[in-house]
Amino acid sequence: MKRKGILIILDGLGDRPIEELGGKTALEYANTPNMDKLAKMGILGQQDPIVPGKPAGSDTAHLAIFGYDPYQTYRGRGFFEALGVGLDLDEDDLAFRVNFATIENGIITDRRAGRISTEEAHELAKAIQENVKLPVEFIFVGATGHRAVLVLKGMASGYKVGENDPHVEGKPPHEFEYGDEESKKVVEILEEFVEKAHKVLEHHQINEKRKKEGKPVANYLLIRGAGTYPNIPMKFTKQWKVKAAAVVATALVKGVARAIGFDVYTPEGATGEYNTDAMAKAKAVVELLKDYDFIFLHFKPTDAAGHDNNPKKKVEMIERADEMIGYIVESIDLENTVIAITGDHSTPCEVKNHSGDPVPLLIVGGGVRADYTESFGERECMRGGIGRVRGKYIVPIIMDLMGRTEKFGA
Amino acid sequence: MKRKGILIILDGLGDRPIEELGGKTALEYANTPNMDKLAKMGILGQQDPIVPGKPAGSDTAHLAIFGYDPYQTYRGRGFFEALGVGLDLDEDDLAFRVNFATIENGIITDRRAGRISTEEAHELAKAIQENVKLPVEFIFVGATGHRAVLVLKGMASGYKVGENDPHVEGKPPHEFEYGDEESKKVVEILEEFVEKAHKVLEHHQINEKRKKEGKPVANYLLIRGAGTYPNIPMKFTKQWKVKAAAVVATALVKGVARAIGFDVYTPEGATGEYNTDAMAKAKAVVELLKDYDFIFLHFKPTDAAGHDNNPKKKVEMIERADEMIGYIVESIDLENTVIAITGDHSTPCEVKNHSGDPVPLLIVGGGVRADYTESFGERECMRGGIGRVRGKYIVPIIMDLMGRTEKFGA
Repeated sequence: MKRKGILIILDGLGDRPIEELGGKTALEYANTPNMDKLAKMGILGQQDPIVPGKPAGSDTAHLAIFGYDPYQTYRGRGFFEALGVGLDLDEDDLAFRVNFATIENGIITDRRAGRISTEEAHELAKAIQENVKLPVEFIFVGATGHRAVLVLKGMASGYKVGENDPHVEGKPPHEFEYGDEESKKVVEILEEFVEKAHKVLEHHQINEKRKKEGKPVANYLLIRGAGTYPNIPMKFTKQWKVKAAAVVATALVKGVARAIGFDVYTPEGATGEYNTDAMAKAKAVVELLKDYDFIFLHFKPTDAAGHDNNPKKKVEMIERADEMIGYIVESIDLENTVIAITGDHSTPCEVKNHSGDPVPLLIVGGGVRADYTESFGERECMRGGIGRVRGKYIVPIIMDLMGRTEKFGA
Repeated sequence: MKRKGILIILDGLGDRPIEELGGKTALEYANTPNMDKLAKMGILGQQDPIVPGKPAGSDTAHLAIFGYDPYQTYRGRGFFEALGVGLDLDEDDLAFRVNFATIENGIITDRRAGRISTEEAHELAKAIQENVKLPVEFIFVGATGHRAVLVLKGMASGYKVGENDPHVEGKPPHEFEYGDEESKKVVEILEEFVEKAHKVLEHHQINEKRKKEGKPVANYLLIRGAGTYPNIPMKFTKQWKVKAAAVVATALVKGVARAIGFDVYTPEGATGEYNTDAMAKAKAVVELLKDYDFIFLHFKPTDAAGHDNNPKKKVEMIERADEMIGYIVESIDLENTVIAITGDHSTPCEVKNHSGDPVPLLIVGGGVRADYTESFGERECMRGGIGRVRGKYIVPIIMDLMGRTEKFGA
């Protein structure tokens, strides 16, 4: 008996009790008839992407959920971002994630430049690529929203560099730190890049227009997350002998999926932002499931709402995800499929960042033993039949239900 | 969002069903309105200080709960006892824990000399320090109750020594064993020490008085727990960047707290014995919380009642701890605090010693997701939302709720 599998990650799904929602979490408060139905049919639990109490990044969390030890694999975020925007990198490249930000009188007033659109970011990035000259070859391209990627060709040995992101607004940019002489050279190049890019951005027509509209201008670059080639011992697709596709819009997560062997698809309208077309993603999953054994579906805006401390928006995004999931379940043969729904980590509104809280987990489909749970939410997951497991066991559990694990021993 | 944290360890808390209590454990039987209220507001679970089924010592359990791997860190109990009584030791010192015991015609008839008082033990220890001469420099001081500490200066290399404690009454003292030539020298010194101390104790006025009162005399020393400097890779306070204080009376636990960087306080009346002033401890915690980020409160007599196989006493001690906890909760801002209540290990009355049973765990305060549990007890903890976790994750979970963890990845 072989089944197909779908892993759905609602980014930053987990939360803590929110006063504005009557002490419920966003997932508990949201109207999610489809996921609640799946909870009744399936099995719930809690998962710790890394270990209990340890906040995971989106990159390390995805690596862990795909079964890799992030402490062995991870070599910094920048590389996944660069893979994710479709760049083909060399082993000696050094990649960074970049935010378009707003600076006024030397103070960072908006770390995301009012969450400028992907189109604006791409055009600004193009202007920088064309007009900035550096002593080394570089690639600078827009990703999703305010995010961009910088690659310094051949500079991997100088990877011990810090960042200029102060991580809070109302402060000047941070000074880049460095750990050795190679990295000091990289810092000098980064400082030159930030300075020259600032001049290009300052009077770019997009910013002139934003200024007139009273929007924060994207006139500064915050650079962080230096990354080199990840240490992936065996690709996911080879390890599990499956044909696997990912439906993702967010560059970072695309990068992780590409690095472990997934074919990556971004349907039109899927942006990774609040305006993402969830139904386009659902249709892509249903279509791809005809050709692939395993589909990974990533949904980003739940995380953004947590970072923005916007509980109502998080509820709205979860409800949109529920419709997306409802469409998928209606369109497939559930008895011959295994579906897991979870987050990569918790992003509680009160924290405005990732936390170490466990993440709700739902598994449903053919072969799944149902438990007594009635709806999908943090509290109900605490009494779920999966118990509390490490993120790294999610894929083996799915693969086992799919009939794709191998016996150890005889 | 930063919160303060309080970790409350009720020593030896966990138990097994007790016939005398109608099949309930002491914690289930006890009247604990304060902890039950916290259980309703918070979240329960079970924790294994080391691993399931492995009985932990009070020292290794505390190390594990503070996040250290006891197999890497632990170098014997004696050193913590010595730190705990306030001694400042050198790296080449060898420390032991000592019991005042009763010997009659070569047979140990009471391993704790009728649990003599701290004052008596201190006076007896003083007499030994003043009247015994050894070929090496030594320190011998009373700790709490029948406990004392022996330090042999500069003898750390002879740490492979056994003990003379038979661990049961009605037998003669055990012969000290040794693992190498250095340790053989230590054993010879210990034998000389025990013999000379016996002579000092035999006719000491305290024992004359105890004899008249029909109490067991403290006329013999049982020596065990050879310990050298622990291998602490980074102090707790540095690792978590917190100002931390401990409210403890028991020397061993004071020693662990000191070794990992806590400022240690013992309020007047806090004895670590059945007569301890729990309310004095509660007041100290509330006072210290004004200046410190993290408070560790240790309550010992629950463990003693387990060792003594005295279920009713254990119930009484748990009820006293409940009052102590009630006072603390009434006096602080719970929304801006995270409180964890657990034991360092289980000390079931039927075992009269530590067992490998998991230990009840309660976490409550700001940010905590409540579960469906209604009261604090072993059985209710089994359906708690924390699930079953290792002791080493308790502090990371608290610190995460306190807003003091760092993300791994981006």
